[in-house]
Amino acid sequence: MTDRMWRIGVAGLGTVGAGLLNFLSERPDFAPAGGRAVVTGVSARSRSRPRPFDISNLPWFDDPVALATSPETDLFVELIGGSDGPAKAAVEAALAAGKPVVTANKALIAEHGAELAALAETNGAPLLFEAAVMGGTPAVKMVREALVGDEIRSVAGILNGTCNYILTEMEASGRAFEEVLAEAQRLGYAESDPTMDVGGFDAAHKISILAALAFGCAPNFAAAEIEGIGQIEQLDIRLAKDLGYRIKLVASADRSPDGVLVRVHPSLAPLGHPLAQAGGALNALFIEGERVGRIYVQGPGAGSGPTAAAVAADIADVMTVATRPVFQKPAASLRPFQPVDPSKMTGRAYLRFLVKDEPGVIAAVSETLAEAGVSIESFLQKPVEDALGVPIVLTTHAVAESVLTAAVERIAGLPSVLERPRLLRIARI
Amino acid sequence: MTDRMWRIGVAGLGTVGAGLLNFLSERPDFAPAGGRAVVTGVSARSRSRPRPFDISNLPWFDDPVALATSPETDLFVELIGGSDGPAKAAVEAALAAGKPVVTANKALIAEHGAELAALAETNGAPLLFEAAVMGGTPAVKMVREALVGDEIRSVAGILNGTCNYILTEMEASGRAFEEVLAEAQRLGYAESDPTMDVGGFDAAHKISILAALAFGCAPNFAAAEIEGIGQIEQLDIRLAKDLGYRIKLVASADRSPDGVLVRVHPSLAPLGHPLAQAGGALNALFIEGERVGRIYVQGPGAGSGPTAAAVAADIADVMTVATRPVFQKPAASLRPFQPVDPSKMTGRAYLRFLVKDEPGVIAAVSETLAEAGVSIESFLQKPVEDALGVPIVLTTHAVAESVLTAAVERIAGLPSVLERPRLLRIARI
Repeated sequence: MTDRMWRIGVAGLGTVGAGLLNFLSERPDFAPAGGRAVVTGVSARSRSRPRPFDISNLPWFDDPVALATSPETDLFVELIGGSDGPAKAAVEAALAAGKPVVTANKALIAEHGAELAALAETNGAPLLFEAAVMGGTPAVKMVREALVGDEIRSVAGILNGTCNYILTEMEASGRAFEEVLAEAQRLGYAESDPTMDVGGFDAAHKISILAALAFGCAPNFAAAEIEGIGQIEQLDIRLAKDLGYRIKLVASADRSPDGVLVRVHPSLAPLGHPLAQAGGALNALFIEGERVGRIYVQGPGAGSGPTAAAVAADIADVMTVATRPVFQKPAASLRPFQPVDPSKMTGRAYLRFLVKDEPGVIAAVSETLAEAGVSIESFLQKPVEDALGVPIVLTTHAVAESVLTAAVERIAGLPSVLERPRLLRIARI
Repeated sequence: MTDRMWRIGVAGLGTVGAGLLNFLSERPDFAPAGGRAVVTGVSARSRSRPRPFDISNLPWFDDPVALATSPETDLFVELIGGSDGPAKAAVEAALAAGKPVVTANKALIAEHGAELAALAETNGAPLLFEAAVMGGTPAVKMVREALVGDEIRSVAGILNGTCNYILTEMEASGRAFEEVLAEAQRLGYAESDPTMDVGGFDAAHKISILAALAFGCAPNFAAAEIEGIGQIEQLDIRLAKDLGYRIKLVASADRSPDGVLVRVHPSLAPLGHPLAQAGGALNALFIEGERVGRIYVQGPGAGSGPTAAAVAADIADVMTVATRPVFQKPAASLRPFQPVDPSKMTGRAYLRFLVKDEPGVIAAVSETLAEAGVSIESFLQKPVEDALGVPIVLTTHAVAESVLTAAVERIAGLPSVLERPRLLRIARI
């Protein structure tokens, strides 16, 4: 134990920053390993903006870089956000000065993690980011530390609470994506520019970080395959349910001898599966290791309280003065991220076609699939009111992605097919 | 990062010890924070016992204390088991000599945790025990480190895989407890003396440890209320299911302003609840914190591979040279464990009575409950073949434990009641 005092500089006073200042004022004794944690400086875009807490007695820094490098700062907490700009500049400045950094910034770590890890290790400064993935649910520590005695094969789950909320609401209310999104924005569950969330980019940042921690490779956000939920229609939610599935935005990272595949896709999970049952804003994650088998963790993925608790846990970790690599292993020995060609992957799929209501159409579709080498697992044709044609929906047995997409292209060209076929993956969980 | 070599002494070469030696021989480079981990000594009850791995080239110690204190040992791994005897002596000797200790010994930590923590901290030696709770599923690190930025209110779950396997098999096969236990013993899922597992003591050790980590109090195994699964009958499994529940051995720890209540009871979980769905040898845990809300984690609770992976993660942790208290806070500032009087707790219950098949019996039972102040939530009377009388089963609304047990005593005394009433709790989850 130690009685060292840690002077903490906090840059960014939004939801998480507010939660952290609240926490540290409610828990002035917070120092699980002994010592003391005291906020000695803050920085944000506007000093005068109304806030639910008083910052008038805290030293103010207009420039987060100045706060990060101040001789009065022992530990720098970055809650500004964004992969570049002031967040990156301030984190780099703190690490270069040998100061420990705690951040909730998934974009920064996913896009610049390898170079920041090298900078941190060169300067002997910890760089921690528990709050960057699954908010208050400790996914980062689990993968980086608790499962380091195993070889992890895959991590897969629901990492974006906004998308999970929207999909849950779409199913519950029968409303369209745009309508539910607008409501989520009114309620503060979605940003005014929702692209990061509903486009799948936020989930891709998080799964890129988990892949680096799990597989000991440098994070490689650029290699992630990303598809958001903006194209999900009510019809697919209902038809998937008829087939025994629920549509979820699933982020996954799989390691094979060929390399690593990181993907974010709307995917079908069987109704009885834990991922299908994790509704609302919940986050959920499966981790599969060669020794430990399958571990499942579920909890809140965002929110001021949970995320601030994760930041506080990282601050406590810094205070233990552990010497640990930023990702699974020292930056210099991280494997290069070797992306796998997704077209070689195999998996099961859900296909929906809108066809003319005339004889021979189903035969034409199923023959085309058979000729292409796609084997049908289940088939459903259901009359739908107000539809221009007849929707037919089917699930396939496992098939190579390249074979599947070629078959879909051929069916799209059939004269009796009225709109572009809809392809969703069935989650490999 | 560091290039320090850690010489590891392993005492106990059973399932977990074998898994650890296997792991370290398969991963000679295992050192996530840099450095090296090399086994430089082993100890066990018998040197000559046939083992699935070769120990002839490893220095042998007849006495684990000698291994623990050897100048060739930098880190002592205790896998002997048992709350006292050689395990305790060796751990104490290692800590007194300032050597880090990693153990999988839940009995030792639950029964002597506070004194060992003080010894560890006085001598500046880490004492880690991830493998003691939930095997390969990282419950300890989650509660001790990742959720330290929160105030935890309760932890509750399934912590004994043997009991969970037996209950799952009883439901699936319709066989009696004794028969399924005998099979589990043949398959190696249960010990030849199964008391620790089926009597609830193993789960009580584990929940006592989690309570200490979660609430910052000294572990107090003696204060745990413990009931095993030996009295669970097929009839209860079937009737509970008819009412929408599954019987699980639930271990829970709850903090209130009055103190802490640690209990292990066969409990009814709603069929759709994750705890009800965690079947076979799985372990599962809910953690509820004031800021983070509810976190759920599920995974393998035992087995050579998973448990050895947890031991290896602790070894990696020692190598980071972190300074961290053994439980949630330094041993000297752990709160005394203030047990709550369980009779003051309220909760819902399942009651089963075997009554004579004659008029007025149900009225007598329900009047007795009403007079005692117990309110019935659901009621089920079902003819059962080969039964001596008629079983009636009911669930109650929340009621104080003392009121409930008094009512049960009065009903037990009714002339039309044929056997001692069966009382099970409905899990507060």
